[in-house]
Formats: sequence, C-alpha cells, structure tokens
Amino acid sequence: MSQVSFTRSWVESANGHTDFPLQNLPLGIFSMAGGAPRSGVAIGDRVFDLQAALQAGLFDGAAGEAVTAMENGQLNAFFDLGRTPRVALRERLLELLREDSPLREKIQAEGETLLPPAADCQMHLPAKINDYTDFYVGIEHAQNVGKLFRPDNPLLPNYKYVPIGYHGRASTVRPSGTDVRRPNGQTLPAGQTEPTFGPCARLDYELELGIWIGKGNALGEPIAVGDAAEHIAGFCLLNDWSARDIQAWEYQPLGPFLSKSFLTSVSPWVVTAEALEPFRRPQPARPEGDPQPLPYLLDKRDQAGGAFDIELEVLLLTEAMREQNLPAHRLTLSNTQYMYWTVAQMVAHHSVNGCQLQAGDLFGSGTLSGPESGQFGSLLEITEGGKKAIELASGEVRKFLEDGDEIILRARCRGEAGASIGFGECRGKILPAR
Amino acid sequence: MSQVSFTRSWVESANGHTDFPLQNLPLGIFSMAGGAPRSGVAIGDRVFDLQAALQAGLFDGAAGEAVTAMENGQLNAFFDLGRTPRVALRERLLELLREDSPLREKIQAEGETLLPPAADCQMHLPAKINDYTDFYVGIEHAQNVGKLFRPDNPLLPNYKYVPIGYHGRASTVRPSGTDVRRPNGQTLPAGQTEPTFGPCARLDYELELGIWIGKGNALGEPIAVGDAAEHIAGFCLLNDWSARDIQAWEYQPLGPFLSKSFLTSVSPWVVTAEALEPFRRPQPARPEGDPQPLPYLLDKRDQAGGAFDIELEVLLLTEAMREQNLPAHRLTLSNTQYMYWTVAQMVAHHSVNGCQLQAGDLFGSGTLSGPESGQFGSLLEITEGGKKAIELASGEVRKFLEDGDEIILRARCRGEAGASIGFGECRGKILPAR
Repeated sequence: MSQVSFTRSWVESANGHTDFPLQNLPLGIFSMAGGAPRSGVAIGDRVFDLQAALQAGLFDGAAGEAVTAMENGQLNAFFDLGRTPRVALRERLLELLREDSPLREKIQAEGETLLPPAADCQMHLPAKINDYTDFYVGIEHAQNVGKLFRPDNPLLPNYKYVPIGYHGRASTVRPSGTDVRRPNGQTLPAGQTEPTFGPCARLDYELELGIWIGKGNALGEPIAVGDAAEHIAGFCLLNDWSARDIQAWEYQPLGPFLSKSFLTSVSPWVVTAEALEPFRRPQPARPEGDPQPLPYLLDKRDQAGGAFDIELEVLLLTEAMREQNLPAHRLTLSNTQYMYWTVAQMVAHHSVNGCQLQAGDLFGSGTLSGPESGQFGSLLEITEGGKKAIELASGEVRKFLEDGDEIILRARCRGEAGASIGFGECRGKILPAR
Repeated sequence: MSQVSFTRSWVESANGHTDFPLQNLPLGIFSMAGGAPRSGVAIGDRVFDLQAALQAGLFDGAAGEAVTAMENGQLNAFFDLGRTPRVALRERLLELLREDSPLREKIQAEGETLLPPAADCQMHLPAKINDYTDFYVGIEHAQNVGKLFRPDNPLLPNYKYVPIGYHGRASTVRPSGTDVRRPNGQTLPAGQTEPTFGPCARLDYELELGIWIGKGNALGEPIAVGDAAEHIAGFCLLNDWSARDIQAWEYQPLGPFLSKSFLTSVSPWVVTAEALEPFRRPQPARPEGDPQPLPYLLDKRDQAGGAFDIELEVLLLTEAMREQNLPAHRLTLSNTQYMYWTVAQMVAHHSVNGCQLQAGDLFGSGTLSGPESGQFGSLLEITEGGKKAIELASGEVRKFLEDGDEIILRARCRGEAGASIGFGECRGKILPAR
C-alpha cells in the first residue's frame, strides 16, 4: 500500500473539489454530439480523449498498446490485456497531465480537441457485458433482510462459508442517467392466495460496488485467490433496482428473476485498482467464533490488504424537492468495509468450479449496508419492509420509490487534503409503469 | 398446423432413417479442417454450405438477405431478422434440395464443395449467447424434486401462476461433444455443520429443450404472448449439467450458482419453428382446480397450438460399456408435452417487466420429466436422490455420474413414414476433477 499523496495537474479543475483529481484517472467510453463512442479519462471537469491523444503521438509502448486495444469504443480488449498495460497507461497519463509536464503546451495547443468538457460528453457503458453476477457479500444487509423473515436466525448456515452470488441479467445493465421504467409483474396481495398483475408497488434501490473483470480465464481453469488481482480491471457504483413485491412472490425456489432484471444502473467511469491502492485496508477481523475461510479462499496478501475504505452515499430527490429547490435527501451513508468477502475471494469462488470469466464481465457486491440506522443500503431495510415512513423536507413521506423520484449514488475515498478520489455519480429517475 | 408430409430429396441419405430429412433443414455453424466457421444446413449425412451456395448465386431476395446476415459465422443477425427471411430461406432450400429440383445438377456439379459430409464438419455454437435463462416449466420434475424436500406439498404456491426461471451463465454454454470437467466446490457432508471442499460427488444431467431467441425487444417494451412467435428462432437440446451436492449447500437464498455454471451443453443444430409446425399440439388441459393463466400469459392461438409433441431420450455410455461394445443404456424417455408453460408464455413472462431479450439469447425449458418411472429427466429423480442404484448391462451400478461416463440426449418428432425429424445429438463425457 502506498501513501495517499496529491500531485497537482495543469488541468486546473483537477486540483479543487472533484471526484477526478490526477490521482484517479478513471477510464470510460464517451461520445460527443453525433460522434462514435471512444475512450477517455476523466480529469477534473474534462475528459482526456485517449484516441485523439494516440493519434497525436502521445502514447507508445505498452501505453500505446493499451489505447489501441480501446479502438472499437469498448474497453473489453483493454481489460483482457491484464494489469501491465493498464499501469503503463496510468504512468504515462500522470506524466502527461501533471503540473510540470513537459508536454503540457503540446496538449494545450490542441485546444479542446484533446480535453473536451465532461458536460459535453455523453457516457456509455465502458464494456460489452457478457455476464453479470450479483453477489451478496454485504453481511449487514444479509442480516437486516434475514431479520425481516427469520428474526432469531437471520443468517443462513452457508453465509460465512460461501460468497453467495447469483447470475444476473446482462442485457439490462445501463449507464447512469438511464431512466427506470417501473416494472409490471405478478405480486401476491397480503392475505391473498392468488396473485394479481400490475405495476410494482414496492420499488427499491440497492447500493452496491460494481467490479469490472479484466483478463479472463479458460473454461475449467480456476483463478486462485492470490492471482485474482490480475483479473480485476476496476470498479464502479451499481444500483441493483429491485421490485420487492415481485421478488417476494417469484423468488422461490430459484432466486430473484424479473424483480431485478428490468434495469441495473452503473456509474460509467472505471476506477482502476491502481487508483484505489492507497485506500486498501486489511479485511476486518472476523468476529470471534466465525469460521476461517476454506483454503481456496484464503490468501495472506488478500487478508492484509484486500478490503477497501470507500465511503458510499445514496441521495433521494423527488419531483417536489426539485420544484422547491430543496437539496437531495441523504438516505444512506455506508462503506465498503461491510463486505464480508473481498473481491479476490469473489473471483476465486466464482471460478473454482471452472466457470469461465471474460473481460468485461460485471460483478455486483450485493447491498452494502452498515449496522446502524443511516447506513442501510436499501429502502427495504430503512423502512423495515415498508412499515416506517421516511419524512422528507418537502413534506412528503416515502416507504418505497414513487414515480419521478431520482436516486443518486456517490462514492468517495478520503485522503489527505486534495488527495480524495470519487467515482462520479450513478443516477436514475423513476418513470411511471407502462 | 399443417399435415406431416414427406418429400424426397435428391440427397439420398435424407430419405432414409435420419434426423435430417428435407422436412427439417436445421441451421448451424460449422467449420472444416482449419477453415473459419460458416453457416450450413443439415440434410441427411451432409451439410449444405450456405455461404458457398450464396456465392454460387443460389439465393436472392429475402433468402439471400437471410444468408448474407450469417456471414460473420454466427446466426445472431439472422435470428434478429425475424420470421419472414427465415421462411423464405426454408422455401428456397426446399426448392433446391427436393428430388425434382431443377437446380440439382448445378449443385451436384460442384461436387462436395456445396455438400461436405457432416462427418468432416466440426460444429460450433450457432450464436453468440448474450444471456442464458433457465426455466423450470417441467411440472413433473418440479413435483419429483419437490417431493424429495416436501413430501406433502411438493409444488410451491407460485408454480401454477409464474413460469419460474432464473438467470444462467452464458459464458459456459458449449456445443455437443465438449467434455465435462467434474467441478470442485463446497459441499456439506451428511450430518455435518461445516462444509468440505473437493470434487462433486453427485454429478447429474438434466434433460431440457433449448430455445433460441430470434428478434429482440427494446428495453422497457414487453413482448405480448400473441407476438412471441416472431421472437423465437428455433430449438435445440440442452443438458443442464448439475452438481447436486454443491447445489444443496449453496442455493439458499439466491438460487443455483456454481452447481450449474461449470458447463451447459447444447445440440448444435437450430431446428426451426417452421420444421416443428406439424408437431405442434394444444396445451395439455390443466388439471381440474388449476388456475387459469393471468391475462398476460393467455392467448387462444397459443393455447390451441403452443405445445409440442417431441420425444426426448437420454442415453448413458460408460467406459466399461464402450470397452465391452455394449449399447448405450436408456435412462430417460420423455416428451415436451410435460411442459406446464409454452415457449410463448416463457417469452411473454420474461419480458413483461421490460427486460430486453436479444437475438441469440438462449432459454432452457427446465428438466422435462414425465410422471412415470423411465420418464425422469435427471438421476436425482431416477435414483431418488442417490438412494436407488441403476444397474447396467456392464455389471456396473450408478447413482450419479462417474468419470468416463457419457450422456447422450436425443429428440424425435414422429410423423408418418419418412416424415419424422430429429434434433441431432447433445453429448458430453465426464472428465476427472482437476
């Protein structure tokens, strides 16, 4: 783990209050009015256009190879290159964009060609997602939800042995800003034995960390927990929108299906493992009596530095709040430290049966709630399954999401003055059901 | 529904005992020694090379459009064209390959160029699979498995309302002939409270119908049950290999995960909806007391002809049986008539929440068992969860699959003399765990 230090950039907006100082350099796919999607790096309030910079001769060697792999407007092939070209690209970007860069004038001479304002850029999914897997490693969430069903025995017997996960729907993952159409579906009204069909009445968010898989593995060849870092390209925020009433009726015996597959939102910037390096932490000690992970999930380096200290926040903005110019209401302030399993353990578990992971696969962590009120990562937990209403400054109350409500996820890694980094936002607004 | 009739082909092997008479014309992707994957049609013991036939000027209009869409060695773009070009291609193929075809000599003049022996062709997956969904519509299987856990109440309350399904792993679907590496994983030994890690000891097959999705839908726009036919490209056999011991320990609360994701095998030929038209049947009458489907799942034409009469067979061939030249042992003889929901209902349900389906998505029906002994579509059912051993002519016994065992799925639609069609095989042999 390196120290959190701050290096100034000649891009002035990168030196103030921003998610994207020089230390971050997250990768993404953007387009400008009418243009084709292309790769870029967020820096302050600008996007550094990697394709244009390659054409301007600013990259060669491994960094050039990295940018060349992005030429089809997707990061998959770049992800598949593994760690070395990614690190080379980062080092070259630090060189190009730091305050005393010898290339500053050359870049600035191109005007906005190489550094368009982020406000003019439309963000896309960073990669073609082949498979999306949603885990359940937020132990506080598992306990909170378990309590609603089994007050005396909230955690199932496998929880502390198995990094529980399930296959999600890849086709409906969309970037931040995509509206959320309220789904229709079957639900079982309280006290009834026959379901009805109609709009979801218990629409919820789930606060998750997203993980982009880098280099894949061959079918039948597991990834060891100690080798997982080579297979992890980066991170994002993920909102696993959930229709609780549809879920309750459909999920036995094979798990959630239509209650989750109408939309999954991700923040569009891929925050790299390198940017997060200073915010790595040892895995929180397991409470006394908890079992040790089985050997295939155990790695000393992972135990020592496989967790992250990332602050996670959820905000709610209703139609009335927007009209009254009220600030967004904070629903959740949580942290990635509530993950019971590390990302390396998730990768090792997922592939231990020989399952093939591919570059551009997406993992969700599962909802990351803390143990305290104010730290709960879903309305299901905050309102105790719809029993307790949330009061808003607009005079409104909420148990679940209403049409017009917008949910905003944010994340922040806190370093010394100026050295904090963020993830950008993951937003979505609810549209009425069809 | 049309009558089952038989038209002779000038390809002689198509007129005898074959899965692929002129009435079938299934589509697939094949390659020959060192060549690139290309599209073809199975006819008798030959493969009609569509790309080569296009170059020879044998297709124009909508049929030409259909073959042109296959030029990248995948059927996705062709699937996405919907029904009309597929029907045009079928009509043209019937014209080209029937006994009195005016083009017979032109085609034969090319020798084996247009009609290589199937034995020389390696088959590939017909499409890039974006998402794979496994349903659970085999009600006899659901009851048989339910009885093992809940003898008095085998079916859960949602079963007769919801076409139950879950997201599967797309990256590990492979064509027939791919070996099955026995997976390692966590299992809970009987009577223990802590799991162990090692090779699966209860490896099983599951006999399923596979469905290839044709034209996709936009996010948020459900497909009506009456429109589903436009979105279904064709059918195959599917073996949902299952690690029962891993499944039992991992599946609560989010469903099967690693117990299914090590491999899923499919037969490589896409049997079209048109070829299956004569084998359509009314949906079996729901037993007295069963609820009517909710309106979004109900369509008169689907009720009248949305089911299929397809005979399904599973054979086992062990290493010792191969050495002793014994014939394969039939484990299962079942039928698609045991589907409680039609394929159109599966499509309508899957998309009713706005979930986007894409051309090349794969559905599994779920295990299709019949009610009688001899009709069970998995060893879990046949051996009652490993209690009753199967005796083989080789003197061996089986409760679950052993290394070296090969499972072969076959399917047959029985018409009048000569007018039966088959699906080809879906085979897989078990390799020892790593």
